[in-house]
Amino acid sequence: MHHGLGQTGCVTDYTPPLADIDFVLGQCGLEDVASLPDFAHVDVAAVPDLIGEAGRFFAKTIAPLNVIGDQVGSVHNPDNTVTTPPGFAAAYQQYVDAGWGAVAASPEYDGGGFPFLVGVAFEELMSTANLSFSMCPLLSQGASRLLEAHGSDAIKATYMPKMITGEWTGTMCLTEPEAGSDLGVIRTKAEPQADGTYRLTGTKIFITFGEHDFADQIVHLVLARTPDAPAGTKGISCFVVPKYLVNADGSLGARNDATCLSIEHKMGIKASPTCVMSFGENGEGAVGELVGELNGGLAAMFTMMNHARIGVAVEGLALAERSYQQAREYATERLQGRASTTPRGERAAIIEHPDVRRMLLTMESSIEAMRRLIYVTAAAIDLGEHHPDTEVRERNEEIAALFTPLAKAWSTDTGFEVTSIGVQIHGGMGFIEETGAAQHLRDARIAMIYEGTNGIQAMDLIGRKLGVRGGAVVMEHFDRIEADIAAISDRGLSATQNALTLALAATRDATLWMGSVTSVDDALAGATPYLRLLSMLTAGHLMVQSATLAAGTDRETSQKRTTRFFCEQLLPTATALVPAITAGAAALAPSN
Amino acid sequence: MHHGLGQTGCVTDYTPPLADIDFVLGQCGLEDVASLPDFAHVDVAAVPDLIGEAGRFFAKTIAPLNVIGDQVGSVHNPDNTVTTPPGFAAAYQQYVDAGWGAVAASPEYDGGGFPFLVGVAFEELMSTANLSFSMCPLLSQGASRLLEAHGSDAIKATYMPKMITGEWTGTMCLTEPEAGSDLGVIRTKAEPQADGTYRLTGTKIFITFGEHDFADQIVHLVLARTPDAPAGTKGISCFVVPKYLVNADGSLGARNDATCLSIEHKMGIKASPTCVMSFGENGEGAVGELVGELNGGLAAMFTMMNHARIGVAVEGLALAERSYQQAREYATERLQGRASTTPRGERAAIIEHPDVRRMLLTMESSIEAMRRLIYVTAAAIDLGEHHPDTEVRERNEEIAALFTPLAKAWSTDTGFEVTSIGVQIHGGMGFIEETGAAQHLRDARIAMIYEGTNGIQAMDLIGRKLGVRGGAVVMEHFDRIEADIAAISDRGLSATQNALTLALAATRDATLWMGSVTSVDDALAGATPYLRLLSMLTAGHLMVQSATLAAGTDRETSQKRTTRFFCEQLLPTATALVPAITAGAAALAPSN
Repeated sequence: MHHGLGQTGCVTDYTPPLADIDFVLGQCGLEDVASLPDFAHVDVAAVPDLIGEAGRFFAKTIAPLNVIGDQVGSVHNPDNTVTTPPGFAAAYQQYVDAGWGAVAASPEYDGGGFPFLVGVAFEELMSTANLSFSMCPLLSQGASRLLEAHGSDAIKATYMPKMITGEWTGTMCLTEPEAGSDLGVIRTKAEPQADGTYRLTGTKIFITFGEHDFADQIVHLVLARTPDAPAGTKGISCFVVPKYLVNADGSLGARNDATCLSIEHKMGIKASPTCVMSFGENGEGAVGELVGELNGGLAAMFTMMNHARIGVAVEGLALAERSYQQAREYATERLQGRASTTPRGERAAIIEHPDVRRMLLTMESSIEAMRRLIYVTAAAIDLGEHHPDTEVRERNEEIAALFTPLAKAWSTDTGFEVTSIGVQIHGGMGFIEETGAAQHLRDARIAMIYEGTNGIQAMDLIGRKLGVRGGAVVMEHFDRIEADIAAISDRGLSATQNALTLALAATRDATLWMGSVTSVDDALAGATPYLRLLSMLTAGHLMVQSATLAAGTDRETSQKRTTRFFCEQLLPTATALVPAITAGAAALAPSN
Repeated sequence: MHHGLGQTGCVTDYTPPLADIDFVLGQCGLEDVASLPDFAHVDVAAVPDLIGEAGRFFAKTIAPLNVIGDQVGSVHNPDNTVTTPPGFAAAYQQYVDAGWGAVAASPEYDGGGFPFLVGVAFEELMSTANLSFSMCPLLSQGASRLLEAHGSDAIKATYMPKMITGEWTGTMCLTEPEAGSDLGVIRTKAEPQADGTYRLTGTKIFITFGEHDFADQIVHLVLARTPDAPAGTKGISCFVVPKYLVNADGSLGARNDATCLSIEHKMGIKASPTCVMSFGENGEGAVGELVGELNGGLAAMFTMMNHARIGVAVEGLALAERSYQQAREYATERLQGRASTTPRGERAAIIEHPDVRRMLLTMESSIEAMRRLIYVTAAAIDLGEHHPDTEVRERNEEIAALFTPLAKAWSTDTGFEVTSIGVQIHGGMGFIEETGAAQHLRDARIAMIYEGTNGIQAMDLIGRKLGVRGGAVVMEHFDRIEADIAAISDRGLSATQNALTLALAATRDATLWMGSVTSVDDALAGATPYLRLLSMLTAGHLMVQSATLAAGTDRETSQKRTTRFFCEQLLPTATALVPAITAGAAALAPSN
């Protein structure tokens, strides 16, 4: 299967981890989700086949382009067009032709209407095969989801059908040079016109696939401020600004004044063009239409935020998985030194060395833990949006809100750490770009930053999530973990039980401390280590749940192995974060 | 001072951290080292000035080339020459002309004859200013040190004077495609000739500055095997193979058959050409002379190993320092969001956010801890080599041997982690290459791999260092730590005292476990987390020592702040590694 560089390094193909994905979909209650009235059209029995088919398509079509995407990168041309790397545009056309764009979309627009939980599995497969490629369809889906939720009927009729299929792509234009984490200071202006449209003027940065050669039309969703808008976040509106105006018959009309001035030279995801977009470069302003309420732009964006953040969490998981597959193959093939079991005069594959096994198992167990945390959050989002019972819906909304910053920040931190281990397993070859291991590390680094830096996620957790319903949401979460720990009957998991018990007690203490402090800075000073502790406790709990479910099946041994390693060897370092969490802000104050 | 990119990112100059370096040199007993008879010629009072002058020279001359070195990189030409980035060769000439090459060299060859401890400070300044550049002089110094220790008088007379000044550079040619961590399987052949020379044939990879345009002559030290050599590590000899043969009058003669076939395309340190070197490409074999004993090549290399590994440890420290300086400046300038102290309507510099302060203090305290661990190891190397009292010499040799894998592996792991925090502080700009933060991360990644991967360091620690003198070396180390913990009288350090006490108890337990296991694989399975624990305990002890020394001085507040943060907030996560250290090899065995 591999078209490798042989003994001194190899670039492997991608093998979709379908068995673990199917198992986790079961653990996360796909049956329950798919049985909701809103998903009556979904044949849950067909999901594994669909996932398998998607995995094969991505492995065959876009995974082989991952390396050339990094080597060539997207290029900005003097005429302000962007050329993506060789093969990318053709692969995108295949993606559209095969109908993959519509899987997660609403059946109202001929989409598959699958739950987000299934969409996440689909995202994992696509992102692992080729992260840079996947960013175009995923951003487009986010944009069309926002239009569906907030757009007028006319706007939806104009844009959605072709965005669903992927014939047109979409962007999210939020960030400006002075407005990154803090969108309240956005300066892009939108002037109302007599015909009800707006004229937009301003510069947006970090616009993923803001310009490209995948499709003719690009539908920009742009945050901007109308002349009389209140200051700050309450004065921001969302506008749809197409690259080409759309004629009444749906055909493309005049070129709109939305220009890609340049693309960034980045550490990774080089095939994904990160654009500086200028609206109104030629003086009149770019033509846009209001989406949703005036001054309700940020609120509209925020309704998409859980989905988008889970999408980035998936990126951490995806690159960890890709890195792991490559490192595992290398460790099996590369001969170096002698292990305790090596016959005299022979050499051992490096996987025989205990230290390499530690690295591989750290990767494998972390990947499983990430997948469980992300998928269970996606299931909570589905139940929170679609369950007919208000009580169940609200409880799941709360869980989704609590788990989303954990999934985003911890999975991207861990994804980066795992890709670094992948480099290390390759030794000197890991530092050589042709090996391909370094690309995963470089690509993974961005996920800790965008869609809200991981520091912002930690502030969100402390400031907005822990206090929900007087702290009852997180306490109920702890009670469920406690009950599941108590229910562990497998004596082979007694050390795991102990480690989880200690982690839970530490997290309860840290959470009570967070609830008790009077200074917000004291709480925020411990936000990042607290997020790590709560994430690893939650993931450890899910790993135990997996081990329990796997008991008596052919996964029992392998699942118990990763569960034990994660809970007994990795989790204690998170438990030890309590002193850092509760040290307060004074300990961090500059001394000069 | 900065020629920055302004509000949206900046590339800063380098400010040598002279105050902390001077303080640490004092803490490590520079006075005691310099008072040894072998260093009678050294004026210890002049050392701070020398260090300061070196820092200014490197900050002015090579620090500004760091970015262009990364952007342009070294280039391999069709005629097998290598062109280094613009400005590098001229800067190297300045370095040679100013006499910096000779600072650490033996006075016998007109070198400064400074202790290694001073040489390490010098290395830190040079590596922080421009790591890629520094690799050429540092490799050359290693090569000349090996020649001085093992070469015949004739070889020394031929090569050393010009290598000391830097007019000629040197390389270490060890690795082959099949022989990386395991040098026993080296295949390069050396055929003895009638005139006493040898003809070498073979390919070496990963040869730093194996070809370049800094100097005409390049002196390769090559490990190879003579025809009748025994198999394995006991059949490897060291040869000096100059790029140009040297005439009797010292002038350069015929071109030797040593060819750079290509250079690697790497993730970082792009200005440093990493060469594939072919010896004997044209059929006759490259002319070489034996250095030291026949079949004693690996032993000769190993006598240089502590120095070389400390050199790489310094690289972790250096890139962390450079990354920290840049991140701190950015955090002071970049405005984003509001902090608790921000007046309404204004924005805060991101350094006002507690989470950013946590990142900066993690960087700062880790850097101080690395610097102390590395410098104290260098002092032990000096005392172990030069103290007139055999007992003192042996005790220090033992400490140097024990601390070297800690300094190498932990400082490079931590250096990489710190540069990643540096990227994170820059937010989205950190991922953009023009900002310069990503280069430090990319450059730092190699140090975990070369000069013995960090996994190899951990195996060395467990297999060769812990058992020295029946385990008494490490136990005496623990006793010294225990005494210093007990002597802490500052009530402001009581939490630090507690954290160190717990870490020491954990490390004692883990060490006793290591001594008790009957399976070497069980010990090796815990080698990497054990190394981290012992490193952080040792570094934490040195941080407390710094705080004690700083009491009553103007450093008291700042030193106590970093000491407390390191010991109270970072160290506990290492203490929590005991379950991972003592889990044994069975927990890591593959399940299929």
